[in-house]
Amino acid sequence: MFMSKYVHGYTERESQRLYDQANAVSGLLHHDTIYPPGSKVLEAGCGIGAQTVILARNSLDAEITSIDISLDSIEKARDSIDKEKIANVHFRQADIFKLPFAEESFDHVFLCFMLEHLQKPAKALLELKKVLKTRGSLTVIEGDHGSCYFYPESDEALQAWRCLIRIQAYLGGNSLIGRQLFPLLEQACFHHINVSPRMVYIDSSKPELMDSFVNKTICPMVEGVEKQALALNFMDKTSWDKGTQDLHRIATLPDGTFCYTFFKGVGIK
Amino acid sequence: MFMSKYVHGYTERESQRLYDQANAVSGLLHHDTIYPPGSKVLEAGCGIGAQTVILARNSLDAEITSIDISLDSIEKARDSIDKEKIANVHFRQADIFKLPFAEESFDHVFLCFMLEHLQKPAKALLELKKVLKTRGSLTVIEGDHGSCYFYPESDEALQAWRCLIRIQAYLGGNSLIGRQLFPLLEQACFHHINVSPRMVYIDSSKPELMDSFVNKTICPMVEGVEKQALALNFMDKTSWDKGTQDLHRIATLPDGTFCYTFFKGVGIK
Repeated sequence: MFMSKYVHGYTERESQRLYDQANAVSGLLHHDTIYPPGSKVLEAGCGIGAQTVILARNSLDAEITSIDISLDSIEKARDSIDKEKIANVHFRQADIFKLPFAEESFDHVFLCFMLEHLQKPAKALLELKKVLKTRGSLTVIEGDHGSCYFYPESDEALQAWRCLIRIQAYLGGNSLIGRQLFPLLEQACFHHINVSPRMVYIDSSKPELMDSFVNKTICPMVEGVEKQALALNFMDKTSWDKGTQDLHRIATLPDGTFCYTFFKGVGIK
Repeated sequence: MFMSKYVHGYTERESQRLYDQANAVSGLLHHDTIYPPGSKVLEAGCGIGAQTVILARNSLDAEITSIDISLDSIEKARDSIDKEKIANVHFRQADIFKLPFAEESFDHVFLCFMLEHLQKPAKALLELKKVLKTRGSLTVIEGDHGSCYFYPESDEALQAWRCLIRIQAYLGGNSLIGRQLFPLLEQACFHHINVSPRMVYIDSSKPELMDSFVNKTICPMVEGVEKQALALNFMDKTSWDKGTQDLHRIATLPDGTFCYTFFKGVGIK
């Protein structure tokens, strides 16, 4: 749920959250993904392009094709790429389960915060593998909402956080997918699989990261599921309000700390 | 609960667990703690010496004084140091809240898996600070049981794991203390505080670490609280058995993954 399942009708606030998040942890997630000049890269599930901008900037001489199932998202992604004057990305609307590319068309495949939304993530990896050249790499980045903990802790804050996990599961996704990247890549028969955790640990010695990650990424993400959480009776409104306030307080208290871990997996076809 | 609260009457199995654990993650936790030749170092709460051996080996020319409240533990610690032919450690029975040392006696203080057992960890840090020289460092390593997650997950395995957290809390300790190191060091007015997470992520590409950490450290740690968990009615015997079996299965399944994070904090007086 680091990118909303609701690919249509993004609010402005949600878009801003996705860009803020991408910038807050871009080094941690992207620094070791640099594609050679001239290589053909498929980004699967680019959404509104929050990761596309970083990906393209780190590999300015690679030819990137970014796809998403939503035309609305692609338009936003194209806008941000144009705004950044990045010229090496080509967008195309496409379904990951019906890829409009010939087999072995790409040197590399990249996907970020995409598998978590799918009912059949292993099948998606197999589809992507088809359009990947032999000895090409597939790189996948996902979060794991079970990796999140913080101080101070309150029951309401924990419950509000768990609503994210429950709603993602209710929608057929899996926000605990980070820990599963290794077995998923194995199931899809990739070779030389390497999965590494990318942990975000923040205390008050890093006030800017606390603001950009906790206040501007984590809190809006939780707040974004309020309607569903209340409608599904996961929490009552009073507890919900306390929970989200407690999460915001972490970022303002001198003793607040926050932990979240992303996972990055790379496999070779 | 990475070292048992039960400082008396260690079983052989528990001792073995502590040594196995120390070896499994010693690099991760200890590699950046190297004290200069001739420096006087206090290790507070050495227990049976599982960390002492590693600490002393990494700083063979430092003069280490290792204390523990339990004479039994100190005897075991002395045995392991002698067995390793390490000559730079002096042991002494002492209570951390009544330290038998003059103020500013030590260049550095080191403690590992100790604060989690205390009702007043901040007070302990203040006591240790007294015997530390101005501009000397204090290094503290703790786990955080809330940082643990794994795949596959079962309700019983999660519950069994949570028994550790609940029992530590019931005994007046805090197994979620890792995330609190920064505020604790701040409360004790240390300067230049730096806290870094040390995450253990294991998948089936690392079978030896899976065995030494999950099978020989994590599982025995959980199994070690069976009597208390059942006596306190935290779980029934059938669920308990399934939970501990599920934890062991993680280490044997090809798709098993396991995550746990330690925290290391350093502050300057």
